[in-house]
Amino acid sequence: MSALIAVDWGTTSLRAARLGAQGQVEEERSSPQGILAVAAGGFPAALDALCDGWHQDKTLTLMSGMVGSRQGWVEAPYCACPAGFDDVARQLVWLRPGQLAIVPGLSCEHDGVPDVMRGEEVQVFGALRLLGLQDATVVLPGTHSKWVTVRGSRIEGFTTFMTGEFYALLRRQSILSRTLPPDDGPLDASAFDQGVAHALTGHSLLGTAFSVRTLSLFERIAAESLPSYLSGLVIGEELRAQPAFPAAVVVIGSPDLAGRYQRALAPQGVTTHAVGHEATWQGLWALSKTLG
Amino acid sequence: MSALIAVDWGTTSLRAARLGAQGQVEEERSSPQGILAVAAGGFPAALDALCDGWHQDKTLTLMSGMVGSRQGWVEAPYCACPAGFDDVARQLVWLRPGQLAIVPGLSCEHDGVPDVMRGEEVQVFGALRLLGLQDATVVLPGTHSKWVTVRGSRIEGFTTFMTGEFYALLRRQSILSRTLPPDDGPLDASAFDQGVAHALTGHSLLGTAFSVRTLSLFERIAAESLPSYLSGLVIGEELRAQPAFPAAVVVIGSPDLAGRYQRALAPQGVTTHAVGHEATWQGLWALSKTLG
Repeated sequence: MSALIAVDWGTTSLRAARLGAQGQVEEERSSPQGILAVAAGGFPAALDALCDGWHQDKTLTLMSGMVGSRQGWVEAPYCACPAGFDDVARQLVWLRPGQLAIVPGLSCEHDGVPDVMRGEEVQVFGALRLLGLQDATVVLPGTHSKWVTVRGSRIEGFTTFMTGEFYALLRRQSILSRTLPPDDGPLDASAFDQGVAHALTGHSLLGTAFSVRTLSLFERIAAESLPSYLSGLVIGEELRAQPAFPAAVVVIGSPDLAGRYQRALAPQGVTTHAVGHEATWQGLWALSKTLG
Repeated sequence: MSALIAVDWGTTSLRAARLGAQGQVEEERSSPQGILAVAAGGFPAALDALCDGWHQDKTLTLMSGMVGSRQGWVEAPYCACPAGFDDVARQLVWLRPGQLAIVPGLSCEHDGVPDVMRGEEVQVFGALRLLGLQDATVVLPGTHSKWVTVRGSRIEGFTTFMTGEFYALLRRQSILSRTLPPDDGPLDASAFDQGVAHALTGHSLLGTAFSVRTLSLFERIAAESLPSYLSGLVIGEELRAQPAFPAAVVVIGSPDLAGRYQRALAPQGVTTHAVGHEATWQGLWALSKTLG
């Protein structure tokens, strides 16, 4: 029998892993049944369907991500920063006592404006354990990128950047989309670097984004390189928005996306450590070990 | 008989005015026949239809805007900055000699990246004449806002900000749109000011835009105020992106939009002069007076 069923339930996808007694991944499954694709009341059935045959009734199941949001299965109130691993473990929301729980997200506040995350906190705690770190700046690229500050194993605060979403909007919905090819194609590293550099010398993506149009209009960049250039522009803008660069950051994400951040950060003198999505399973595994 | 038919032919709209011997507007007409709505070869017929009865064959017609772009009637090559009124007048592209011409747009370059405008140059020259100015910073808010520097009646350079387009994308296509009401409603000045202030203290719209979601999530702002708040955020971002504020700016645009810029600029100690779209007719009229 497995020791834990770990579930990462986001807005547009549902992933689950069956972990063995040492925390090793024995099987992974995923489905497009993100919370937006599940009707109210349909969450238990969607989970059962994905975990079919995993003896879910006999195995602890921990879920993180948007499943704990207002649009999810049950709303799990945010845990306020600074927050450590133990604070999160204490505020699990139990759906079936001792058997099925949702991990709460975190909230913090800067200058009177709140910020929130759901799911990334588990990845951060998992990555810190994998790397044996207590202090770090952790970057989680994605639709809504997070820059997280960890001191003494506690998440002190974080900032969200809508980088992936801005890329998708500019790529597919804006006037710039007219000059871009239908598919992104492989990364053109030189065009990506050019985009990062232009963003870093600019003052705002509102202005630098227009260069996608003008560089194309004056035939200074090939159409097939424009998606890479635009990717560099938005990631470069996320870097430009940092008040200062730490000496090192941990980047959690898919190899392609984490690689782009590593490429953009290197010329800024920032050392990077990349961790994949195994951070989620590691974080949920560590949480399970704190329970009776 | 009229002295000039002035045409402002943009991406999504076509406007024309019949001007009398003193440059006064005798009649204005408009249609949704922007260049994107006109099939190749259909431009003469679209113009004739709008100007029906204006004795177009006997009256000089000057056109500005995207009608001179690659997707327009005929491509009118950009006039390079610095460019004065006379440079533009000299580079008119004649479709019917002495009778029908397109005004060229302007191009400039910053740090190896080109920028372009089509139509705004006519508004700038028109506004300067209306206000009797030779030196100014001119702001033209819109889908693609322009900040234009004029010295000695010549346009030295300008910068484009995709402010209106970012607003529309975030308002209608992003995750933020889910918390916004279907209609913008009247401006909530206080929410607008809050958005401007947050943008000015932030580092990038990539980050500050997420506050639309979190302020709504924590019920710190009413849903019906969110469009005004978001409008303040994007206009505030455009202001934040300025390297420095001039003592005074000329704002050319509709009363509502120009009013928002005036409201956002006032606390920065910037004096503003607002000019409406009559600047276009004034600019084309002045151009017509330079011709034999």
